[in-house]
Amino acid sequence: MKRNFLLALLFVNGVTLFAQNKDEQFFKQIYSSSLTNSKCYSWLDHLSNKIGSRLSGSNGAQKAVEYTKSQMETLGFDKVYLQEVMVPHWVRGEKETAYIHDNKTKTVVPICALGGSIATSKNGLEAEVIEVHSLAELKDLGTDKVKGKIVFYNRPMNPDNIDTFDSYFKAGDQRRSGAKEAAKYGAVGTIVRSLNLRLDDFPHAGGQNYGDLPKDQYIPAAAISTNGAELLSKSLKKNPNLKFYFKQSCQTLPDVLSYNVVGEIKGTEHPEKIMVVGGHLDSWDLADGSHDDGAGVVQSMEVMNIFKNLNYKPKNTLRVVLFMNEENGGKGGAKYEELSKQNGENHIFALESDSGGFTPRGFSFEANDVNFKKIQAYKNLFEPYLIHSFTIGEGGSDIEHLTSKTIVKAGLKPDPQRYFDYHHAANDKFDAIDKRELELGAATMTALIYMIDQNGIE
Amino acid sequence: MKRNFLLALLFVNGVTLFAQNKDEQFFKQIYSSSLTNSKCYSWLDHLSNKIGSRLSGSNGAQKAVEYTKSQMETLGFDKVYLQEVMVPHWVRGEKETAYIHDNKTKTVVPICALGGSIATSKNGLEAEVIEVHSLAELKDLGTDKVKGKIVFYNRPMNPDNIDTFDSYFKAGDQRRSGAKEAAKYGAVGTIVRSLNLRLDDFPHAGGQNYGDLPKDQYIPAAAISTNGAELLSKSLKKNPNLKFYFKQSCQTLPDVLSYNVVGEIKGTEHPEKIMVVGGHLDSWDLADGSHDDGAGVVQSMEVMNIFKNLNYKPKNTLRVVLFMNEENGGKGGAKYEELSKQNGENHIFALESDSGGFTPRGFSFEANDVNFKKIQAYKNLFEPYLIHSFTIGEGGSDIEHLTSKTIVKAGLKPDPQRYFDYHHAANDKFDAIDKRELELGAATMTALIYMIDQNGIE
Repeated sequence: MKRNFLLALLFVNGVTLFAQNKDEQFFKQIYSSSLTNSKCYSWLDHLSNKIGSRLSGSNGAQKAVEYTKSQMETLGFDKVYLQEVMVPHWVRGEKETAYIHDNKTKTVVPICALGGSIATSKNGLEAEVIEVHSLAELKDLGTDKVKGKIVFYNRPMNPDNIDTFDSYFKAGDQRRSGAKEAAKYGAVGTIVRSLNLRLDDFPHAGGQNYGDLPKDQYIPAAAISTNGAELLSKSLKKNPNLKFYFKQSCQTLPDVLSYNVVGEIKGTEHPEKIMVVGGHLDSWDLADGSHDDGAGVVQSMEVMNIFKNLNYKPKNTLRVVLFMNEENGGKGGAKYEELSKQNGENHIFALESDSGGFTPRGFSFEANDVNFKKIQAYKNLFEPYLIHSFTIGEGGSDIEHLTSKTIVKAGLKPDPQRYFDYHHAANDKFDAIDKRELELGAATMTALIYMIDQNGIE
Repeated sequence: MKRNFLLALLFVNGVTLFAQNKDEQFFKQIYSSSLTNSKCYSWLDHLSNKIGSRLSGSNGAQKAVEYTKSQMETLGFDKVYLQEVMVPHWVRGEKETAYIHDNKTKTVVPICALGGSIATSKNGLEAEVIEVHSLAELKDLGTDKVKGKIVFYNRPMNPDNIDTFDSYFKAGDQRRSGAKEAAKYGAVGTIVRSLNLRLDDFPHAGGQNYGDLPKDQYIPAAAISTNGAELLSKSLKKNPNLKFYFKQSCQTLPDVLSYNVVGEIKGTEHPEKIMVVGGHLDSWDLADGSHDDGAGVVQSMEVMNIFKNLNYKPKNTLRVVLFMNEENGGKGGAKYEELSKQNGENHIFALESDSGGFTPRGFSFEANDVNFKKIQAYKNLFEPYLIHSFTIGEGGSDIEHLTSKTIVKAGLKPDPQRYFDYHHAANDKFDAIDKRELELGAATMTALIYMIDQNGIE
């Protein structure tokens, strides 16, 4: 009995060891393929340098749909197809101008209109400024102090936080809701400090939303560079009555037909179980969007390229989905989910890369305890590749609404320190991407999908 | 008895918990101080942008000695002093020129003389080229195939390796010993592929050594950019008889008096036990040397600045040592060790930062099993700061020779993926440094020194 037990134990351990060893070997092949034989960097070169910015509804966005579809068609999918989706079409118009008007001195500062904002009048807008550091402070000031003024939101991202994304979300209410709230108190415009941890001259774009404010109460909203914000704040301390001038000619045009791009390979064992990996095709309009989210797009495509190079056929159905309109509407993610529900699909896993193309550190998971425990057991396989951080957290906004009974969602977590130096700004360009870091991210995503494919979820 | 045991256990756990909690709190203060109140980035701005390159014997090196000494004097050390050290004085002279001479076509390629190399003749050197991929291949070819030719070493760094430093050392023999070995077979010069993982146009400098070769057998040695190496190799495949031309006017001048800069604060409890933290002041001459090793210099200084800001007085003596001449001689490190031995000093700990100013990932340790185990127990304190990698490995070349009975040595390990994009090349500049990443490195070093100071070594 004892002997049989020991033999059984040896057998079980043997099988586990064999599996572990097989996975170790496959991880090696995945990383090697990505570091020596990947296409993601040259795809990104094309997206960034040949196509450029890709705001929803733009020519760039349409070209990106066509280009990635044509590239996906070379990767050995069973089918590559488009999903129609209507998207907002906001355009910036002429480059914005702004200055601090202090007595007779006009000091030009860099601004950009926030996505979704209305224009100023043709001659621009000039008014006194009231500086606040939170929506609560605005409320305390009330109509008396705010009416007729430009509200200047100047709460910096908290530097004293390793998790820069957390600092971003916590400072982000000023950008997202600042105009809507200020309008309630009679403000004539808003200027928000760019969501950037360092001091520089780049204004950072991003979405804002008037919510249920009546249209005739909309006010123009812009972001100012962090250096500009520091200057404006200092100038206001010297002269609280100075004025700020800005002019922007952005507008929202009628919605436009656009597309998610989908590549699909049927699972050899469980074709009804679907794994999704993706990023978003659209970007803000000020730069190439190489980090946000060109990187995520080409890394997701590279997952399939690596499987192709290694001749790996997934047991479960794998879809690479390049979502449209993450930045100013989320229509692509919603459409994917809507169609999936219509078709009664069963997603077991969704992985998004939308946190930059920096060196990968791990994943955040939306998973129940059982699945998180199961996945944590894979961590030792990742450690030789300096992947160490498996946490509970958000997957990503394109896969946010995706529901299935026990779906596991994950977001790639690259090193977060430099992301907000570039996020939504004119310097989010190809030269800010390191080839190896991008490739290591793609390999890390592929390795996780391989483990989910091999072992399923509970 | 049982009850007493339980009480004792509670007491021990209570003490441990208290200590852990105290350390957690102090870690928080360290990182917060570095991210919100540090001087390292502005020190580096000065070193890089006001002083610039700092090759041993240069004006830049001397200015760096003076500047860092003056800054160290503001940090609350008991004393700041210089250690005299004679250093080599190699100068590049005029900018090098080189071209591939293929029939009647001359294609210019970017090269730079390797440190310690002799010049070509005034009119330059032109010869046929023999491409090799290792010193062993050179030996196999022998004098017949090599005599009268330029040896072109073209083995790339292995991209299929997460540890880029390992790839660097393994490809580095071509640069370090290539000229010495080629001269033995009658070569007239050597060109080595730059030690850079990516394809670009920067030639990367670095030391080479003629060893015990008689002086009259020295041959000129240069590095070529990776793109240049690819082109030369491709051209040689088409025309093995093409010629390569290069001209360089570098020379070695007489040794120069220079200095290590040392700041010292006596330990409050164990003044006879010394902890050292440092980086090297000198850099190659093609750029500011912001990563190599301006970052390590200012991070080491920041350790003391953080202690000062937090009013922390170390129990053991702490020295911040800025070493001279790491790049082409190691004379500063050797001098420090020589003086230390003369004075019968006892070092318990030495920490070096000389792997770039990138986001920190951990440390490599030279420590016996007992001490490594002791230090590994600190790891959980570091994890909230995304510090996860404690390995056995080298501390650093400036602290290499330092001996004491049970000294622990450590090297800061930043993320290694981008280091060799910049290493020894003209793009190793201030704008390649991220402020937060630099500060996180300084905080991580400070936290380790704090733990060693609190708990000693065995």
